[in-house]
Amino acid sequence: MTSAIAAQSLTPAAIQAAYGLIQPHVHRTPLLTCKTLDTIASTPQSPEALVGTLFEGQTPARPQFRFFFKCENFQRIGAFKARGAFHALLRLLEERGEDVKRRGVITHSSGNHAQALALAASTLGIPAYIVMPRISTLSKIAGTQSHGAEVIFSGSTSVEREAVVAEIQAKTDAILVPPYDDFNVICGQGTTALELEAQHAEQAGSRALDAVITPIGGGGLNSGVATWFSDKQTRVFGAEPSFEGADDCRRGLQAGKRVEAVGTLTIADGLRTPVGLLNWEVISNEKKVEGVFAVTEDQIKSAMRLVIERMKVVVEPSAVVGLAVCLFDENFRRRVEKEGGNDGWDVGVVFSGGNTTVEAITKLFT
Amino acid sequence: MTSAIAAQSLTPAAIQAAYGLIQPHVHRTPLLTCKTLDTIASTPQSPEALVGTLFEGQTPARPQFRFFFKCENFQRIGAFKARGAFHALLRLLEERGEDVKRRGVITHSSGNHAQALALAASTLGIPAYIVMPRISTLSKIAGTQSHGAEVIFSGSTSVEREAVVAEIQAKTDAILVPPYDDFNVICGQGTTALELEAQHAEQAGSRALDAVITPIGGGGLNSGVATWFSDKQTRVFGAEPSFEGADDCRRGLQAGKRVEAVGTLTIADGLRTPVGLLNWEVISNEKKVEGVFAVTEDQIKSAMRLVIERMKVVVEPSAVVGLAVCLFDENFRRRVEKEGGNDGWDVGVVFSGGNTTVEAITKLFT
Repeated sequence: MTSAIAAQSLTPAAIQAAYGLIQPHVHRTPLLTCKTLDTIASTPQSPEALVGTLFEGQTPARPQFRFFFKCENFQRIGAFKARGAFHALLRLLEERGEDVKRRGVITHSSGNHAQALALAASTLGIPAYIVMPRISTLSKIAGTQSHGAEVIFSGSTSVEREAVVAEIQAKTDAILVPPYDDFNVICGQGTTALELEAQHAEQAGSRALDAVITPIGGGGLNSGVATWFSDKQTRVFGAEPSFEGADDCRRGLQAGKRVEAVGTLTIADGLRTPVGLLNWEVISNEKKVEGVFAVTEDQIKSAMRLVIERMKVVVEPSAVVGLAVCLFDENFRRRVEKEGGNDGWDVGVVFSGGNTTVEAITKLFT
Repeated sequence: MTSAIAAQSLTPAAIQAAYGLIQPHVHRTPLLTCKTLDTIASTPQSPEALVGTLFEGQTPARPQFRFFFKCENFQRIGAFKARGAFHALLRLLEERGEDVKRRGVITHSSGNHAQALALAASTLGIPAYIVMPRISTLSKIAGTQSHGAEVIFSGSTSVEREAVVAEIQAKTDAILVPPYDDFNVICGQGTTALELEAQHAEQAGSRALDAVITPIGGGGLNSGVATWFSDKQTRVFGAEPSFEGADDCRRGLQAGKRVEAVGTLTIADGLRTPVGLLNWEVISNEKKVEGVFAVTEDQIKSAMRLVIERMKVVVEPSAVVGLAVCLFDENFRRRVEKEGGNDGWDVGVVFSGGNTTVEAITKLFT
């Protein structure tokens, strides 16, 4: 099945069905508001702040924001990835039955997907093999092992990692669960949007969400969220780091062609991968995703500082690229000013994860 | 009125009345749980971890904890102090009428009480004068000013600060609102316990809270919480840093006499003050507070790291001394083991505040 055909099955109904399956296994994470951040984002940037940026010399925009932060940093294993991992494994069990428990599942990842798959597999009684680069930090290895997975080491390049995956698969017949370029994973991540919309309605009454913005790495979260809102008036946007070309999705949209490889060491370490094929089918459909914006490393750090110091909530750098767009991207802010007017926009901002350490925070801010 | 007589009026009914007054002005902060922290605290410490401590050579205790974290770090101005400040000013307005708005209110503090009083005063249309040491950090000065208070600088010693307070009072007739040694302030802080108990009942059903532990600096929070629970079966405990004698309350209880002065630079900077007179009347009553425990700077840092990394919640060092007692104090842990047995204890832990910065976190952990 080509990605284009598979993308046609990505519907709100598919997300709803995913939610029915995973609900017992994931947290309904809180939707938080923060008046201080609303005020900061609704204050025009100073002309000086725009010097040296693309927007130098422009009159700063005057947008009005009311933020609703979907805190997937409080999700199980500290990131939205738990949703997709549980959904993928529950579907495997449905489709292939007990055989899955004999064969096991496998992935290569050193990040949140590894821990999510390990947790989901151990919960459902499925052996999990996680291929991690030998140079992974000890805490990540220990975290993955603590959820009951067998960690197998590899070299760092994708060729080396895939060779080890193939070797384990030859031995065990384990089924590959990709981190983002996968129908069931996308449906799982999309349940974030379903909850966000329902919680916003509980808090804001009849007013609909004007927009939702999420980070884009491989695009699992963003394409899932865009799928959920595809038959609704809520606009969906994506956010990426610009550092060393990490904004592959934004660049691909400009060029009209998916960028297939990225080599970046952005501090937003969850967003270093190029967008996946199936994900691209959704995100490049402008009826589903209205725009993708990119922010600098300093802007990510500024947003992270505000969330830590003002909201008292711990987020990883990847989690705040959407907020950074709202705070600093004059094109986005201009759009909110124009379309939202004095009334402004209710904007859902997905905090994708909170897996960081005091050492990592220390390293970022010194 | 002596402290002993004033203490007799500190009743659950007084806390309930305070709550009725301040409710429109404060957040009902969330009561969070965290299975990971329950598991860590319910695992015996290793014998090696006890080497070099008072408990060296003992068999580590086997307590069972279920924590309920009352997150006053999410309170307005980032700390429980907003409760006491609003209550004190609302009572002043009740008792002395509009005259208060002419005279204004004054305090000396460089910490959370300063910001809390500034916020409450500006909300209620009362001028506020805050005397702060000239060496206060710029962010604290700016924070206090941002809530509309007039900041007046002084030297750092209490003599110098009180001289400036007297000078301003002579000019303005402003009314002093003490940070903790005050009936109305204590009643305000005690509303934390009222909410905690109600939220625990919502989450845990018919089971009563077995214990609550809070930090003790001046003792406003702990004496208020102990007042609320004084006619109930929930035990109340206090926690202090041990560094440079910051455990004045614990030492005072041992000696049977309040310690009147403390000189400490513990990282728990909200807990550097000696316990107040009225606060001591409550805390030294063993029917109200069953024990006060002290923890080291390293134990405070360990607890803070766990809360940041595992709960994804930002706390200041003062906020986690209670959790540190639960994690590390073998006397306390032995008591939970003995009295709680296999069933364990439901323990309410008050996170008193979250006012820190990425720089402060960096400094603590490097």
